[in-house]
Amino acid sequence: MNTNTDAVLAELDRAFPAAEARLVEWLRIPSVSAQPAHAADCRRAGEWVLAQLTALGFTGSLRETAGHPVVVAHHPGPGTAAGPHLLFYGHYDVQPPDPLELWHSPPFEPTIVEGPNGPRVVARGAVDDKGQVMMWLEALRAWHATTGGIPVRCTVLVEGEEEIGSPSLDPFLAANAAELKADVAVISDTGMWDVNTPALSTRLRGLVYTQIDLTCANRDLHSGMYGGLALNPLNLLTRILGGLHDDNGVVQVPGFYEGIIDPSPAQKAEWNSLGFNEAQFLGEIGLTRGIGEGNRGALERLWSRPTADLNGVWGGYTGDGSKTVIASQAHAKLSFRLVPGQDPDKVVAGLRQFLADRLPEDAKVEVQVFGASPGIEIPADSRFVQEARAALAAEYGRPAVLIGCGGSIPVVESMRRLLGLDSLLMGFGLTDDQVHSPNEKFDLTCFRHGARSHARLLGRLAGG
Amino acid sequence: MNTNTDAVLAELDRAFPAAEARLVEWLRIPSVSAQPAHAADCRRAGEWVLAQLTALGFTGSLRETAGHPVVVAHHPGPGTAAGPHLLFYGHYDVQPPDPLELWHSPPFEPTIVEGPNGPRVVARGAVDDKGQVMMWLEALRAWHATTGGIPVRCTVLVEGEEEIGSPSLDPFLAANAAELKADVAVISDTGMWDVNTPALSTRLRGLVYTQIDLTCANRDLHSGMYGGLALNPLNLLTRILGGLHDDNGVVQVPGFYEGIIDPSPAQKAEWNSLGFNEAQFLGEIGLTRGIGEGNRGALERLWSRPTADLNGVWGGYTGDGSKTVIASQAHAKLSFRLVPGQDPDKVVAGLRQFLADRLPEDAKVEVQVFGASPGIEIPADSRFVQEARAALAAEYGRPAVLIGCGGSIPVVESMRRLLGLDSLLMGFGLTDDQVHSPNEKFDLTCFRHGARSHARLLGRLAGG
Repeated sequence: MNTNTDAVLAELDRAFPAAEARLVEWLRIPSVSAQPAHAADCRRAGEWVLAQLTALGFTGSLRETAGHPVVVAHHPGPGTAAGPHLLFYGHYDVQPPDPLELWHSPPFEPTIVEGPNGPRVVARGAVDDKGQVMMWLEALRAWHATTGGIPVRCTVLVEGEEEIGSPSLDPFLAANAAELKADVAVISDTGMWDVNTPALSTRLRGLVYTQIDLTCANRDLHSGMYGGLALNPLNLLTRILGGLHDDNGVVQVPGFYEGIIDPSPAQKAEWNSLGFNEAQFLGEIGLTRGIGEGNRGALERLWSRPTADLNGVWGGYTGDGSKTVIASQAHAKLSFRLVPGQDPDKVVAGLRQFLADRLPEDAKVEVQVFGASPGIEIPADSRFVQEARAALAAEYGRPAVLIGCGGSIPVVESMRRLLGLDSLLMGFGLTDDQVHSPNEKFDLTCFRHGARSHARLLGRLAGG
Repeated sequence: MNTNTDAVLAELDRAFPAAEARLVEWLRIPSVSAQPAHAADCRRAGEWVLAQLTALGFTGSLRETAGHPVVVAHHPGPGTAAGPHLLFYGHYDVQPPDPLELWHSPPFEPTIVEGPNGPRVVARGAVDDKGQVMMWLEALRAWHATTGGIPVRCTVLVEGEEEIGSPSLDPFLAANAAELKADVAVISDTGMWDVNTPALSTRLRGLVYTQIDLTCANRDLHSGMYGGLALNPLNLLTRILGGLHDDNGVVQVPGFYEGIIDPSPAQKAEWNSLGFNEAQFLGEIGLTRGIGEGNRGALERLWSRPTADLNGVWGGYTGDGSKTVIASQAHAKLSFRLVPGQDPDKVVAGLRQFLADRLPEDAKVEVQVFGASPGIEIPADSRFVQEARAALAAEYGRPAVLIGCGGSIPVVESMRRLLGLDSLLMGFGLTDDQVHSPNEKFDLTCFRHGARSHARLLGRLAGG
């Protein structure tokens, strides 16, 4: 099979200008999912990718949803039972390009510009996610061109609502779970460590998002008439939530740290060796020092430690000047980033307990929960992670690092919950790609090495 | 002079129906200062009171301001140097009557209704402040009718912007300080303890009102990307302001309690003897227990202890649902009710110190001060308080109580600051008068005894 892989890589290099042209063609379609005026463009972008797959022998269609359609296509692979069944995931929709005046070239007229890493394509969706989808699509195409087939069984799912929160995805996965069943989900929507260092994302933080509503008196009060006798919900809110952390930054919600799966010492050592520049990272946002547990490295805190952050607070008078009011109510949005091992439901229960323990007789509290998803860890010793690491090492001449992500990628949680699938997060974005911002770009070197890495992975999984 | 006073009281009783008719006439003028459409009515209400004073031998005029005119009138009294010089203060403007549909009779068609204390007049301005002004005006009229003159030297100042925050008053007092100089300001805009118990208000709380703006990062951040490393200003705001009080409710601002003049044990005993029903007071607003220092009575806490109350907090995402943002800024409106002896400037300085002591390196704080006025105590042993107590005791057959007020009355502070005058706060309102609400009323028994009390006071000050 190595022979095949070598031929596939040669084909990829030979046909790279054509691959670049195909990416540019797809980028010209302004598939902005948030804007109803672009609904037809979204469908066109889905049809475009479906046509690419059909040309490679896939059988598929646009599947209707309450919103934009989902592209689903299947290829049986070589027909042997040996290899795994892959589910490739991506999205054909893009963010709105606003503000337009900050773009140096029109967002839907892809432009090749020279950058520090060589040529790059500048367009909305260049890396998020059309460029990343095109890498595995070009890898499949090169296999098809070289061997006349696809080396493993594949299902492809490309949705059109990722940039608006994927409202139709969970219902679609649930309704088509049997059809979409595979051995692993391959998702290209993440990043490299840097342009020379490939990465797999194996840890994602989860999220519990709540709203806390405190009520004291049955109406707003005059602070002259009642101040000093009447319980003030804003004083109470700050008092209770001001105690969310102790002096060392440890979250005081009962049971909060229970079950946390710490990264292995080897994993921590790998993170610490990455040379993450915390001072520069914080300096860019006007800060000089990180918060959190000082005995843990910055990446360890970001990728493997949970948080409790107020995302909003409000209550009482918030206009200009003064109003001597004691409010009846106070409100807060409070969210927790969770790490693998924490149980989101237990965190919610712990929060309720934390509040109840501190609530005086005359106050009422309500807690709304807007979301509760666990942190996710993809086992480093899984077959797919190991094969991907080897493929990346072969392509880049250096080991791929296993990194984390401080946020969550909802599709990863959905794949696990609804299809029982782990995800392989092999992405080729760089931190300066301007994702969701004007002048979004994708370095062509990332595009080329990414496609080659996917081709190598397919070869290995096919039994190379 | 006692002979004169007795005759004056007889005249007041004889002419009471006419006094009632005059009050009704004044109440028919819809002098709503907040509404430009009523500007002419405001002027007419001022002219009306000026005409009443002129008929008693006063010399005066309407004085123009940036807003509604001020009525100023002078009477030399009997021309001897013996008696004091009084400055009567009141206001001819009224609150808007809305919501109109909740009135049982039209707000500017005064109606006599029978109530638990006998007949009452229902109209906007009945007690606030036309009824209260008419009490001293009727007392002066009865003196004039009985003796042909006014027994002490008087200046009268009736403004037309009290209900909109008296924007022209301070400039007017400052510009006319020499003309308005007197020995005491007599202000009838406060209340009795109950319908049978006269009261003088001798303690008012002051107010320091601030806005606190905290800034951490130079822009809003994604909580997935930065949570656990970046300082969160909302977490910080609750942490700092949650420590504003200790577990016993003691305010932690440095020097906050310095200089406080405690009421005398006799004064506290008087307050405790008033039978204030804290449970009922709080029950009406849905609370069951008062906050604050448990070893002090409710009235003592309300009238003689300072507070620190958040009047508003805001920052971050406050809309529906969730947004995983770490805000750049957090804000709070924080005010302090001050008691006599506290220095407002020192409280502001203490607040700045309190914040600075708790501010981490990466946070910036700005403090805006929207007002800083001291608590005011009118000495119980002053001649005017003593004479007023005696007048009230004679009229009601029971001692007048010296009460406090949890709020501030800005004109009292202005009189002290700009004219160097203490105020005598002798008022005859009741707690059920519906001030600023639909169906505002004034009990005629309060009106009659109030006018008689003023007549007695004039007699005593004239040397009775």
